[in-house]
Amino acid sequence: MKDSMTLADAFQNCKYPVVGHGKRNVRVLLESLEGTDGDTASDMYGKGDTIERFEAKMAAYLGKPEAVFFPSGTMAQQIALRIHCDETGKRKVAYHPLSHLELYEEDGLKALHRIETVLLADRDRLIRPEDVRDLEDDAACLLLELPQREIGGQLPPYAELEEISAYCRSRGIRLHLDGARLFEILPHYEKSAAEICALFDSAYVSFYKGLGGVAGAILAGEPALTERSKVWKRRHGGDLISLYPYVISSDYYFDKRIGKMAQYYEEAMALAEMYNGCADTIRTVPAVPASNMFHVHADVSKEALESILAGVAEETGVGLSAWVKALDDGGSGFEATIGDRYAAVPEDRLRSAFS
Amino acid sequence: MKDSMTLADAFQNCKYPVVGHGKRNVRVLLESLEGTDGDTASDMYGKGDTIERFEAKMAAYLGKPEAVFFPSGTMAQQIALRIHCDETGKRKVAYHPLSHLELYEEDGLKALHRIETVLLADRDRLIRPEDVRDLEDDAACLLLELPQREIGGQLPPYAELEEISAYCRSRGIRLHLDGARLFEILPHYEKSAAEICALFDSAYVSFYKGLGGVAGAILAGEPALTERSKVWKRRHGGDLISLYPYVISSDYYFDKRIGKMAQYYEEAMALAEMYNGCADTIRTVPAVPASNMFHVHADVSKEALESILAGVAEETGVGLSAWVKALDDGGSGFEATIGDRYAAVPEDRLRSAFS
Repeated sequence: MKDSMTLADAFQNCKYPVVGHGKRNVRVLLESLEGTDGDTASDMYGKGDTIERFEAKMAAYLGKPEAVFFPSGTMAQQIALRIHCDETGKRKVAYHPLSHLELYEEDGLKALHRIETVLLADRDRLIRPEDVRDLEDDAACLLLELPQREIGGQLPPYAELEEISAYCRSRGIRLHLDGARLFEILPHYEKSAAEICALFDSAYVSFYKGLGGVAGAILAGEPALTERSKVWKRRHGGDLISLYPYVISSDYYFDKRIGKMAQYYEEAMALAEMYNGCADTIRTVPAVPASNMFHVHADVSKEALESILAGVAEETGVGLSAWVKALDDGGSGFEATIGDRYAAVPEDRLRSAFS
Repeated sequence: MKDSMTLADAFQNCKYPVVGHGKRNVRVLLESLEGTDGDTASDMYGKGDTIERFEAKMAAYLGKPEAVFFPSGTMAQQIALRIHCDETGKRKVAYHPLSHLELYEEDGLKALHRIETVLLADRDRLIRPEDVRDLEDDAACLLLELPQREIGGQLPPYAELEEISAYCRSRGIRLHLDGARLFEILPHYEKSAAEICALFDSAYVSFYKGLGGVAGAILAGEPALTERSKVWKRRHGGDLISLYPYVISSDYYFDKRIGKMAQYYEEAMALAEMYNGCADTIRTVPAVPASNMFHVHADVSKEALESILAGVAEETGVGLSAWVKALDDGGSGFEATIGDRYAAVPEDRLRSAFS
């Protein structure tokens, strides 16, 4: 490996990238538009055939009466939590310390909606029923992220989900699903999206993670919530005159990949097994993936792991990750997410990367 | 005319629609993507060549140090006003009673940002320098919309703009430009966008009015403001992983139509003259357009005007408007906005519609 070749470059130029669907480029949009007639009318501020049909399709899929398309999950989830607060007359919501809202949204929930937050559970484990029983009466809503992305996509046993849901209902605490990767966990639970969503009062799903779309989100729930969410969408500046570039591409990639989630899941389990078998200093979190994703932890420095991965890419053509981050324990790690690319990697090539 | 044919249908089916660029359909996006290489990388949460290059281009065009692309003007403007409030330590902004923020944004500015508003001027006239001198010291910012869309796109004399700007600077009141139709007024003022924006501390422009793009907005100003605006964009849920469908189309239609604003303006003046000459009961507001748009007021009921316009469309093939609204004075009216379609209407056909 040339000293000047970074891991990002090595991944970018390797013959067999293992993670993801492909490059995020304009072709992703172009492919999704190929079958679309140019005469198809734009949506107009949330109204129109294309957007309403897709909302109805997703409402049916998620088993909720109504669904509303949003440009982003950040917007959809803040709004869902705001409505749960307004409807219950409370100003507090609870979520995991590594929730997307806590890490990546610049405290929008607090700055825009003045909602207080309660961080449930420790950073490195899932929220359990006993954590939820510790919630005070002033909590309007609990947000559960399934799977919990920042700890490798871990999932609670389904019975625990049911227990949390029943408890929240008994106490009048609303339950919201951060389903950014909901489609990806269906094979593990062996449940339909509607069965899982039935445990929740509202659910958000995303179209550019496992589905690999351009952008976009759906918020589903009761009509009282979805109708109010449209008013807040307008207030947030998300009620665009035309959302069809995201709607059409979301619909296209939903149809294209929703049936492949079991395949990605199995491939993730196979790949995790290779990581766990290759060296004592390397392990996956969780040990057995619960979706198409997992994290890889190594007992070596960030720089050392970058060098190893760049070397593998150069010697075998196999790109395992484009980046590595330092971990608090002195080790390092990265995220692996399985998409369409995995199946295109010859098995002997992949094995050679781990030998 | 068949009784069952509504004005909307008659306009939809007429041979010569007079207003607008064309139908808002998927072809608008497809056309803008024709010259784009599929390998072009997506922007990633506001970063990347395509978005940054367009922001730099618009910053230069508007004569401001920095510019940030937003999915909507609703989002961009609330954020600009919020930052002006935070930077001045005040919680009040002033704008026209028929401002977009007052009419179409479900009070997002108040609900999300807790900003108080002062409505300057009467509903049916422009804000004048004397209105601005009435502002109290607790106003952080004055928003001026150029042209004032809801009163037919009226514009103040340029000297009044300069006077308002100088007064605001002398009093420490920030001045923000709602330039949703800024491109459209340049021929009237015979000024560059940069010259006009120099009177303002921040400016927003839109890409789907006169330019006819898909959606999208730019907020331009000093780096202190634009950098903060990116944080608020994240909070609002507008910092999408991919905004390129809007960025590419905005750039395309800017290049395609920015040079046609003088033509649209002249055509608007010619069309307004026809309205003002055709009957005593019909007049335009303003009497002489200041941009590519004006309003038409008639001393007849909404139903009567709808019937007249539908009849014109059926008899002459000329579609003057797709809708009519009732006015407070018992009369009725509609908006006329000139775009690419006007030049395709044969002059004799157009004359026949007014005879």
